[in-house]
Amino acid sequence: MSDLDTTFLKKSIEIATLSVNQGGGPFGAIIVKDDTIISTGNNQVTINNDPTAHAEIIAIRNACQTLASFTLEGCILYSSCEPCPMCMSAIYWSRLDRVVFAATEKDAAKAGFDDANIARELALPYTSRSIKVEHVKCEGHDACFTAWQNKPDKTSY
Amino acid sequence: MSDLDTTFLKKSIEIATLSVNQGGGPFGAIIVKDDTIISTGNNQVTINNDPTAHAEIIAIRNACQTLASFTLEGCILYSSCEPCPMCMSAIYWSRLDRVVFAATEKDAAKAGFDDANIARELALPYTSRSIKVEHVKCEGHDACFTAWQNKPDKTSY
Repeated sequence: MSDLDTTFLKKSIEIATLSVNQGGGPFGAIIVKDDTIISTGNNQVTINNDPTAHAEIIAIRNACQTLASFTLEGCILYSSCEPCPMCMSAIYWSRLDRVVFAATEKDAAKAGFDDANIARELALPYTSRSIKVEHVKCEGHDACFTAWQNKPDKTSY
Repeated sequence: MSDLDTTFLKKSIEIATLSVNQGGGPFGAIIVKDDTIISTGNNQVTINNDPTAHAEIIAIRNACQTLASFTLEGCILYSSCEPCPMCMSAIYWSRLDRVVFAATEKDAAKAGFDDANIARELALPYTSRSIKVEHVKCEGHDACFTAWQNKPDKTSY
C-alpha cells in the first residue's frame, strides 16, 4: 500500500458516492496505468438496464477502448468494493496486473448486495444450483471450433 | 431436453461458426422467452477490443435492451459452449431461469480457451493467485453505501 493507492482508492469511493446521486448503484472503479487514471466506471445496472454494467466491467471496457487493446497488462484496477465473481473473472480475461479494493463483500452484503451467493452457487455442481444448467449433447457442437482452428488469419487471445 | 432445445442449441452453434467468419471468437449464444428468440450474441473480444464481450454477455445485454429490464426472469440462455465463470456470474445477476450448453469447457480448452484456469484461480485465497488482489482499509470506504441507504427513491436490485 502506497500513498498513491490511497489516493486512487478514495477517488473510486468518490465515484461510487456520485453514482448514487446519479441514479446508479453505490460502486465505483478506476483503472490506472503508469500512475495515471486511464478510465473510470460506476454501477449502471438499473439506469442502463444492463445487469453486467458493474463499475469494474465498465472501467475495464473503457480502459480497453482508451488503449485500443483487448488486454490491460501493466494496469491496476482500484475498486470501491471487493469485485464480485463476474468482475473478478473479467479481471482475469483482461489480464490486469493488480486489483486494490476498499469495502469488502461483507460491507456490500450489509448494504443489500449479496455477491457471496454467486460464489457459493459457482462452487456447487450444476444439479444442485438454483439456476438450472444443462449440458445437452448436440451433433456438430464442435463445428465452430473446427472453423476457428482452420482460420489462418485469426486473432488468438 | 426437448426438440426445441436442440433447435435453439443448433442455432447458437451456427452463430458461433458465423462469428469466426466475421472475425470474432468461436462462441454463440441466444436468449429465448416463450419459445421465441429475443436476442443473440457472438464473441467480439478481439474485434471490439472488449475482454467482456463474450457471446453470453452480449446476448444478456441485448435481451435486457429488448425487454427494457435489468433482469431476465422467464428466459432461457442457449450457448454453443459451457459458460465461463464471468458469464455464469452474469447469468445469476440477470436471473435467467435456465442455461443449456453444447460444447464443454474441455472442448473449449482443446481449441485454446482455458476458462478452467479462471475457476481454479477464483477458488484460491487472494495471496495465492496469479493476479495480486489487495484489500486496503480506507477511511470513508462506506460513504457510498451510506448514500445508497439514505436515498429514498433508489431502484434496488
